[in-house]
Amino acid sequence: MTAAEAPDAHLPAAGPPRVDLLFEPGGRRVRVPAGVTVFDAASWNGIGIDSTCGGHGTCKKCRVRIVDGAATPSSVDIRAFSPDELRLGWRLACRADAASDAVVEVPPLVTRPKAATVGVGRRVILRPAVQKRYLELGEPSLADQRSDLERILDALDDLELRADLHAVRVAGRVLRAADYLVTAVIVDDVLIDVQPGDTTALSYGIAFDLGTTTVVATLLDLSTGTPVAVASALNAQQPFGADVITRISAAMLDPSTLGKLTELAHSTLAALAAEVCAEARVDPADVYEIALAGNATMTHIALGIDPEPLGVAPFILAARLLPEVLAADLGVAVHPRARAVVFPPFGAYVGGDITAGLLASGMDRDARTRLFIDIGTNCEIVLGNRDWLLATAAPAGPAFEGAAIRCGMRAAEGAIEVVTMTPDSVSLRVIGDAEPAGLCGSGLVDAVTGLVRLGLLDSTGRFVSVEAAAALAPGLAGRLTTLGEERVFVLHWLGEQGDVARSVYLTQRDVRELQFAKAAIATGWRILLEEAGLAAGDIQQVLLAGSFGSYLSPGNAVRLGLVPDVPVPRIVSAGNVAGEGAKMALLSVRERAAGLALLEEVRYVELSDRADFNDRFIDQLAFPSFAG
Amino acid sequence: MTAAEAPDAHLPAAGPPRVDLLFEPGGRRVRVPAGVTVFDAASWNGIGIDSTCGGHGTCKKCRVRIVDGAATPSSVDIRAFSPDELRLGWRLACRADAASDAVVEVPPLVTRPKAATVGVGRRVILRPAVQKRYLELGEPSLADQRSDLERILDALDDLELRADLHAVRVAGRVLRAADYLVTAVIVDDVLIDVQPGDTTALSYGIAFDLGTTTVVATLLDLSTGTPVAVASALNAQQPFGADVITRISAAMLDPSTLGKLTELAHSTLAALAAEVCAEARVDPADVYEIALAGNATMTHIALGIDPEPLGVAPFILAARLLPEVLAADLGVAVHPRARAVVFPPFGAYVGGDITAGLLASGMDRDARTRLFIDIGTNCEIVLGNRDWLLATAAPAGPAFEGAAIRCGMRAAEGAIEVVTMTPDSVSLRVIGDAEPAGLCGSGLVDAVTGLVRLGLLDSTGRFVSVEAAAALAPGLAGRLTTLGEERVFVLHWLGEQGDVARSVYLTQRDVRELQFAKAAIATGWRILLEEAGLAAGDIQQVLLAGSFGSYLSPGNAVRLGLVPDVPVPRIVSAGNVAGEGAKMALLSVRERAAGLALLEEVRYVELSDRADFNDRFIDQLAFPSFAG
Repeated sequence: MTAAEAPDAHLPAAGPPRVDLLFEPGGRRVRVPAGVTVFDAASWNGIGIDSTCGGHGTCKKCRVRIVDGAATPSSVDIRAFSPDELRLGWRLACRADAASDAVVEVPPLVTRPKAATVGVGRRVILRPAVQKRYLELGEPSLADQRSDLERILDALDDLELRADLHAVRVAGRVLRAADYLVTAVIVDDVLIDVQPGDTTALSYGIAFDLGTTTVVATLLDLSTGTPVAVASALNAQQPFGADVITRISAAMLDPSTLGKLTELAHSTLAALAAEVCAEARVDPADVYEIALAGNATMTHIALGIDPEPLGVAPFILAARLLPEVLAADLGVAVHPRARAVVFPPFGAYVGGDITAGLLASGMDRDARTRLFIDIGTNCEIVLGNRDWLLATAAPAGPAFEGAAIRCGMRAAEGAIEVVTMTPDSVSLRVIGDAEPAGLCGSGLVDAVTGLVRLGLLDSTGRFVSVEAAAALAPGLAGRLTTLGEERVFVLHWLGEQGDVARSVYLTQRDVRELQFAKAAIATGWRILLEEAGLAAGDIQQVLLAGSFGSYLSPGNAVRLGLVPDVPVPRIVSAGNVAGEGAKMALLSVRERAAGLALLEEVRYVELSDRADFNDRFIDQLAFPSFAG
Repeated sequence: MTAAEAPDAHLPAAGPPRVDLLFEPGGRRVRVPAGVTVFDAASWNGIGIDSTCGGHGTCKKCRVRIVDGAATPSSVDIRAFSPDELRLGWRLACRADAASDAVVEVPPLVTRPKAATVGVGRRVILRPAVQKRYLELGEPSLADQRSDLERILDALDDLELRADLHAVRVAGRVLRAADYLVTAVIVDDVLIDVQPGDTTALSYGIAFDLGTTTVVATLLDLSTGTPVAVASALNAQQPFGADVITRISAAMLDPSTLGKLTELAHSTLAALAAEVCAEARVDPADVYEIALAGNATMTHIALGIDPEPLGVAPFILAARLLPEVLAADLGVAVHPRARAVVFPPFGAYVGGDITAGLLASGMDRDARTRLFIDIGTNCEIVLGNRDWLLATAAPAGPAFEGAAIRCGMRAAEGAIEVVTMTPDSVSLRVIGDAEPAGLCGSGLVDAVTGLVRLGLLDSTGRFVSVEAAAALAPGLAGRLTTLGEERVFVLHWLGEQGDVARSVYLTQRDVRELQFAKAAIATGWRILLEEAGLAAGDIQQVLLAGSFGSYLSPGNAVRLGLVPDVPVPRIVSAGNVAGEGAKMALLSVRERAAGLALLEEVRYVELSDRADFNDRFIDQLAFPSFAG
């Protein structure tokens, strides 16, 4: 069999080649990009290996035996093992690159690792960047004149740390006031604080999902992995526009607007941080790290970076890999030297929220070929499995956010979220069981699907004549009427029947908006399937991300052609995966590294410069025809 | 010959062993600690080797041929050279460790390196941490969607940089406003700014000598190495005490004092920075780095660190290696992301000013055995050569600063700086040619030496009887009188002769103060000589550092026993070596690294816990007897 005949030969080459590792005992087989360390490969797949230094090669505890495929010993291995052990394949997992397929024997764990379940059923072994260490230090003397900082760092010699000026400022007084019994607070490789006594039990982080519309904060106890408080709020930037494009435009029109938008992002984050801390009775000074997942525009603005180049061709990010940021740089008043992990974007329209979402859904580690769709004004689509990932962004327009729909609204109280139609009746489910006030994205999809299925909308998306409607669905014909010059379908009469203007209705133009959105999204995933040489039937799971995904009826999404034609049980609402990814980053430096690695592993397919995009888009405008 | 018989076998082992490198053509032979790179060894000795990356192994320009003693090729060498070249001994100088004696051939320079003379006649090849690079970048397109930051960093691929948030914030607007013709501002490995157009000519640094009494600022043009403005001011902390101990005590008595002292240090530095920039018409925003050399107490306070542990046994520093600091952390308003290099201290009483002074005087590179003495309230003494260095601190007390001397004053206008005595007359030289107002340290030494030489003070330091004085020095006997119960010698009558209280005079207690100071210092260098197994005659040069050193009469310093008995021409005033060291750190990252390396190479000899210190101190109290 030549390479060209290999079963996967038609698949796109994205990122480095993959290798298979078989972990024993247990027989777990994992597939990872060649070149990651055995330690990372295990950790990313929830397989515990002893370590206290977190993979820096200093604690020498992550001993494994590589039975088959052992690599050249590293300089650290040579010091850690005897020549006999080296010959038998013993290596430090953190220094052994997975260069080729191998079998790895893991000794029984000395310490059972703590783990938490986050994301889409992901088991994450706790290894936060935040570490607290209680130290009982000897007092200095003329025979031991080490500086205060050296005294502390010498007691942490399994880590290679540098100190923050803040820690050096407080160290002297704290050491002497606490009789040299202190807790060192470390984030990554930085000593950020020294506290009197044993404060190791108090260690928190806040995960933020910074959405254009809604911002969610989760306070995590980093020592247990447990969320202890959650709060959400509307993004205070709302007055500057409902979507990213209007906010970018606002910043372009008036140079002073960027500063205001940044301040509003900060005040939203700060208020939520205060709220979750108050709810859980946690001192904000015990929050040592925050993580932020948002789209590229929200992330740029929160960091005080002009988003204008994101909004105009050729759609350029200020930076993919973001610089080191403090929580204070984002206006969040927690520990003064707390760090901020900001999820990096792939591109202007596939942002850090998607990086976080892919991490949370394990797209890069699952053997199944899956399609990840985050539906919104901008729709991000990722197709792939642990061997390859393709991503694109489709300009869906504002149909699903409600903005361009005449009676549209966000998925909030009063929004019609489910519409069920028969030829005789329309039944509605309304969020909060309230009087219907408008139509949210999932209701829109249901309503249009119902009308297409009953034949009241033809396959080009046009309302049929009143006569045809009366024949097809006698009980609904009265709802198909006009408002001014436009044809509309009334979903719910508010006030007197016949007073169309005061009812909740669907217009011909609304249908067109949905057609455009659906066509853009369907073109996006079709192009990705084609790039991968796959058909819709090859997709083993469709993950619908975000709040829209949780409301959408999978059946109707398939009927409308919004998602590929796969069996309905394969369509799964993944929930707020961006927020889950942010939590994972706080709970594990390994997961954080995996999130960064995604930037290299995902190949981005740009739609806007494809010659065939418009043709294919027009092909997708039509609705499928239903047999009844 | 056994090791014990080798000529240097009695010398103290301090720091790593040394190796000899012979650079060809030119035949310069240098001796450096084993393990430093060939590039550093050359650079520290003013020998130029091509390089643009500054020794990171990325530019691959520092090609040298190691004729004899070639080391194993590094992984970078293997990519940079052909197997034939490797066999011939070609290596990258920045990756080749000087492990043993070797001959190094340096190809002719492609670019003639700029150099400046600073310190005690040191030729420094310019390689500031601050680098500006003018970039002409391509505009982005749909085919080239690299982020703004990637576009800039790709054009700087001979450096391995990370970006500061500030640079990412400004990059987008600057790139677009300047048609992608920009200047990148880099400090060390951090991109701190992006500026429109070509601003490479504007690059400045400020070197600060932060003294307890006086603070000096020098504005340096980093592109030429030229000082463009100098200013000095009294340290605004003066109201809290004249010396470090009184300032530490002030901070101990009232916890709010530390904040005030820090603020006063900052305001002194800030005012001087503003002054030198205004004088040279330099925009403070074009100052990208500052360097600070000061004693441990001044440095701690300037960084906002409690100095209390420095002032009480066992004399503990907050940190030897200080954390990364911004100019803003020291209150200096220059470029908002400018860095600060703070010279690290050896110990509580051998501070960063001494580190800087040793660097400037080249103590660690000179073949001659030299004695470095910085006389002040605390006297720092370093003995050694390029093979070994010993340091100690002697508690000289405030005699030389004028504080404990009845008519004492700082070396300022009106201070008697030189006193010449014959049996018949006293002649004085006064700073600023003014009416004498008091006696500074050098005048004190002269006066006491003169009195001892004439026999008016006996070898125990007591004034002789009036009768004996009249016999020995008839013309001066009228000056030896009493004030209250104390015997005094009048140096200059102010107002009417006979009105002792209004004259400038020397008291018996003043003589005692000088005896104590002299005994402490002499005990210090004697103990160092003994540790090194050397005699005074082995000292080839005595360097007197600081302003006191420039006023002191070398002859009298020898006569009094303050410095070892060496021929007077070997005693050299080294001037403000702390400030010179700070300049060197700004002009060359190599010199900065050499300054850090000193911390490892100097062995500190603690006097306060030596059982024999008091005995030896008492031995040194006596004055030498003179033959006329």
